[in-house]
Amino acid sequence: MIRTSVIGLGYWGPNLARNVHTCPGTFLYSLCDRDEERLAAIATNYPAAKTDSDAATVLADPDVEAVVVATPVHTHYKLAKAALEAGKHVLVEKPLTDSVETANELVELAETKGLILMVDHIFVFSPPVRKMKEVVESGELGDLFFIDSIRINLGLFQHDINVVWDLAPHDLSIVDYLLGRLPRSISAFGSVHAGQDIEDVAYLNLDFGEGLIANIHVNWLSPVKVRHVLIGASKKSVLYNDLDGSEPVKIYDRGIHVDGSREARHGLMIDYRSGDVVSPHFQRAEPLQQMVRHFAECIEHDRKPLTSGEAGLRVVRILDAAQRSIKAQGGRITL
Amino acid sequence: MIRTSVIGLGYWGPNLARNVHTCPGTFLYSLCDRDEERLAAIATNYPAAKTDSDAATVLADPDVEAVVVATPVHTHYKLAKAALEAGKHVLVEKPLTDSVETANELVELAETKGLILMVDHIFVFSPPVRKMKEVVESGELGDLFFIDSIRINLGLFQHDINVVWDLAPHDLSIVDYLLGRLPRSISAFGSVHAGQDIEDVAYLNLDFGEGLIANIHVNWLSPVKVRHVLIGASKKSVLYNDLDGSEPVKIYDRGIHVDGSREARHGLMIDYRSGDVVSPHFQRAEPLQQMVRHFAECIEHDRKPLTSGEAGLRVVRILDAAQRSIKAQGGRITL
Amino acid sequence: MIRTSVIGLGYWGPNLARNVHTCPGTFLYSLCDRDEERLAAIATNYPAAKTDSDAATVLADPDVEAVVVATPVHTHYKLAKAALEAGKHVLVEKPLTDSVETANELVELAETKGLILMVDHIFVFSPPVRKMKEVVESGELGDLFFIDSIRINLGLFQHDINVVWDLAPHDLSIVDYLLGRLPRSISAFGSVHAGQDIEDVAYLNLDFGEGLIANIHVNWLSPVKVRHVLIGASKKSVLYNDLDGSEPVKIYDRGIHVDGSREARHGLMIDYRSGDVVSPHFQRAEPLQQMVRHFAECIEHDRKPLTSGEAGLRVVRILDAAQRSIKAQGGRITL
Amino acid sequence: MIRTSVIGLGYWGPNLARNVHTCPGTFLYSLCDRDEERLAAIATNYPAAKTDSDAATVLADPDVEAVVVATPVHTHYKLAKAALEAGKHVLVEKPLTDSVETANELVELAETKGLILMVDHIFVFSPPVRKMKEVVESGELGDLFFIDSIRINLGLFQHDINVVWDLAPHDLSIVDYLLGRLPRSISAFGSVHAGQDIEDVAYLNLDFGEGLIANIHVNWLSPVKVRHVLIGASKKSVLYNDLDGSEPVKIYDRGIHVDGSREARHGLMIDYRSGDVVSPHFQRAEPLQQMVRHFAECIEHDRKPLTSGEAGLRVVRILDAAQRSIKAQGGRITL
Repeated sequence: MIRTSVIGLGYWGPNLARNVHTCPGTFLYSLCDRDEERLAAIATNYPAAKTDSDAATVLADPDVEAVVVATPVHTHYKLAKAALEAGKHVLVEKPLTDSVETANELVELAETKGLILMVDHIFVFSPPVRKMKEVVESGELGDLFFIDSIRINLGLFQHDINVVWDLAPHDLSIVDYLLGRLPRSISAFGSVHAGQDIEDVAYLNLDFGEGLIANIHVNWLSPVKVRHVLIGASKKSVLYNDLDGSEPVKIYDRGIHVDGSREARHGLMIDYRSGDVVSPHFQRAEPLQQMVRHFAECIEHDRKPLTSGEAGLRVVRILDAAQRSIKAQGGRITL
Repeated sequence: MIRTSVIGLGYWGPNLARNVHTCPGTFLYSLCDRDEERLAAIATNYPAAKTDSDAATVLADPDVEAVVVATPVHTHYKLAKAALEAGKHVLVEKPLTDSVETANELVELAETKGLILMVDHIFVFSPPVRKMKEVVESGELGDLFFIDSIRINLGLFQHDINVVWDLAPHDLSIVDYLLGRLPRSISAFGSVHAGQDIEDVAYLNLDFGEGLIANIHVNWLSPVKVRHVLIGASKKSVLYNDLDGSEPVKIYDRGIHVDGSREARHGLMIDYRSGDVVSPHFQRAEPLQQMVRHFAECIEHDRKPLTSGEAGLRVVRILDAAQRSIKAQGGRITL
Repeated sequence: MIRTSVIGLGYWGPNLARNVHTCPGTFLYSLCDRDEERLAAIATNYPAAKTDSDAATVLADPDVEAVVVATPVHTHYKLAKAALEAGKHVLVEKPLTDSVETANELVELAETKGLILMVDHIFVFSPPVRKMKEVVESGELGDLFFIDSIRINLGLFQHDINVVWDLAPHDLSIVDYLLGRLPRSISAFGSVHAGQDIEDVAYLNLDFGEGLIANIHVNWLSPVKVRHVLIGASKKSVLYNDLDGSEPVKIYDRGIHVDGSREARHGLMIDYRSGDVVSPHFQRAEPLQQMVRHFAECIEHDRKPLTSGEAGLRVVRILDAAQRSIKAQGGRITL
Repeated sequence: MIRTSVIGLGYWGPNLARNVHTCPGTFLYSLCDRDEERLAAIATNYPAAKTDSDAATVLADPDVEAVVVATPVHTHYKLAKAALEAGKHVLVEKPLTDSVETANELVELAETKGLILMVDHIFVFSPPVRKMKEVVESGELGDLFFIDSIRINLGLFQHDINVVWDLAPHDLSIVDYLLGRLPRSISAFGSVHAGQDIEDVAYLNLDFGEGLIANIHVNWLSPVKVRHVLIGASKKSVLYNDLDGSEPVKIYDRGIHVDGSREARHGLMIDYRSGDVVSPHFQRAEPLQQMVRHFAECIEHDRKPLTSGEAGLRVVRILDAAQRSIKAQGGRITL
């Protein structure tokens, strides 16, 4: 079992600690948080784990093989870098870092050191997203036309990041996983309310070329919670509704067929195909547990993680471009 | 009763004819369509109505007091202009015309002639939209933050217009009715698929200033039908789901309160308010019937219609700007 | 075209008249209602139809080939009998009559006269129910375990009948169509409220033997509208939600497999199968139009209707038994 | 803190253990299960708790103040009796016991001994049910007409009990909490499938007199999960949908008003009132935690629990009557 330390025990860290504890491949070696009271409270659940209030102590311990970084975003780079330099494998909360330069540096450092660098793009490990990937890969959808992703709710305002850096990594990592490539360009709008100087509503428009676009709506001010990913395509389409407990993924055998001939186009001979809707069965599994297991397996077998540092870098590149486009009132940024 | 002719009996015209026939203030004087077979088929339901296959004949008839124009968009200007010049009151299918210049000319002509010019912005006459207007006017929402409008479906491809000119007039007329003013600027994206050269997916982003934005998603390629208007605001928020037959409008007493002091902002002292959700009762009424009655009343009492030529012109101005922004890859257009 | 008269123009009659008018196989020969004002109002839509305020005149007219009876339930028997005796084919609103004796007499009279007697069991002509029938017939469900049917709403109180005779014919005719046989016994409960002396809430429990039961809940006092038919079976199950406009029928490949061996039963070795959910596509069609066409075809080709007098009699037998069980506080009635 | 032992660590026991551990008023003193492997596995989470594989040892320990019994139903009586005789306060999983006699004996024994006897009627501690109780108590509903409760799912077959004894305690305890009295009579139907000799589908019909009935549908074979409680009443009605995460309770200001005069009744002058639908806000709280806290408070302050032994006895009396009615093919049993 890989001796693993979890650094940062705020909102998400305790969940990571619990999964590191129960995952067969990892051993929860130690817990670390600057807030000693918080640290002590979480530690009562894990009597076998050491506790440290200073991350430096954790990184200096030669028995630590892997580190999970779940601290505020602006500290990801410094902590992950120090961990890699200390020879530890690293799993970082999303987003990987808060700039392209630092994300890139971490990727290169992990490569040089021969260590695993993985990002907690949690949705890549959720069964519905896995099912969507399987459907996209099978080719049954035909040509992809658009991806429309909505992630809105009354949200947790963050100290150091806006709604784009907070929520859009989820959507962008799903899109990255489904398509496996960067968009050609991006345009984004953000809006500031409630006396804050950080964006709490934003829309991102990604152009992947060949008629494929992705649109993302992230919002901390919505009274209703919506989490939809809709993939429109030439043959079939897919809707993933994360809040539908019984049928989260639906495949629609519906579409429009246009006869491409000149005569046909003049008359717009359109055939609406309407067919079955299938909600495929899949095994339910806790995404966080899958993710921690994947981290352990990648370390053990020296494999590239699905949500590698490179994937994390791609997401940071889009976030960075989105931020610049928002500042430019939606001006299009080429990637 | 106002002697009224309906010109154009394609998809929507027969619905207008039926409502002109049953509305107490109007008399269905005649029906007109170039397709004589179509004309005859519809006319069997209205034995008292005259039939004409030539609009010129209708406009030349001094007994005709008002004309309803339900022909393809590119013919609206010519027909409405001729009707106004012939001294008829005019109700035009949305959008008013296909250019700012022609829309403006119709508005001025109606003004000069002292005739009623009205646009069939049908949703302005739907009870849920009326209820939203009442809620917005009451001030109970506080400051408006965003309007997010989604209108997607497997759609009817149009000969002469794209999805923006086809569907967005609904959303834009709702927003225009709620806010009563033009946005300061607009940015839009469109995407072309299925062998067509007209946009079938589009996103519009309207900036109204003072932190208020409106985002509109129109789409002819969605396998699922969605018709949502979400208004986010500082005190309460409203969701209008046109497909929810039992509770189409919901008012959420939920929001975020941020203490504006410097100290508070450092620590982001946020209070999540969560309260009741109310689905207000309102009388069901057929919007089309309300609209035709309003047309008759405006003629009778010489009143400015709610969906006047000016409102139609404002919508055309936004559509025109959206079209230009799409051509400019989302470049922002100031209005 | 069969010259057809519609007698009774209250709530449902005008819908029947409209469909007789548009159905290719029938000609709306005349309209009849004792309320001359009502008669005149409906007749304006059908200038070619004769009008009569006395049913006797209709029945005495040798040009009338078929009669649609849409009058209050207690008049069905007398009118249908007179029509059959006058040599007319008859389509009667549900339920066929208000007693087993009279229903039986009509069936025998139609048989003797060689005339078509059909009941307006409208749901038998709805595409979702047709799809359910197809699924049941295919055998893919395995052994049927239970049918649970809910039909509740704020309802229209009837002058002469309770909620069982008003609403349950829908559920019973669906069950009769699916199973094609009478239950062995029935038990029913009814409840009286709101100052009335007629039941407004009722539950029916039908035992079909071999482990198959059907339970029906009909209710005029429910603030929410529900129309569900759930068929549970050994292999697959089906849910028909009449209010789900997009996916009214869902087939669930889910169930429980119990190993029947003694050892297994001791340990209750149960395997939960969970598979896909499929919402099959089917053509949308107006059930009333299908029903009137079927009536015309049965007359033309002298065929037994799907919703024959016999089917109507079976439903009346169950209604009658339910009524007796209610009076007996739920005492079980054998059929 | 009350030193508490949890006996029985099957499906539900571990949840009780976790809440006893975290509840401020109780101390998880020991864990007990005959399956030593299971016992050891659960115990790793609670290093401070003792473990015993024999309940007798637990009951003989004078340091144990209270016992939670979460064993199979047929063992409740013996264990609870022994615990009370040993002077321990007792919390028993639902249903209290499997017969009226034994339930009664426990109630009397607890009374004699001056000990707290409480049943885990968990839904009584759920916020939506609390809200329903508040609404019923307020009188705003007017006269109650019916309660319709549906609890269906692919269920866990039990070794020793049928679907009535397994699921209906939830519905019956909710109804008991809302009304606070026994029904006058009950009639029930059950159905056996899947090679078992225990009922897996059942319907219960409870008559409370004065026009108030409750109907309960419990089912282990339903492919869809439904958990609805609908209360119909003269002024307002309430729907509790346990699966609606955002608006579990809705209050409908809808109903039917019947003018009670003879003339009015002849003409059935009915007024459909249709008003707002309100989904009231309430604090979310884990019912199990509330329940364990209540147990601790009742011990500390020697108070009668909301879900006292008497409430448990009332539920067992109805279950017993339902069972007898099922055997009698639905024959009505007076309570």
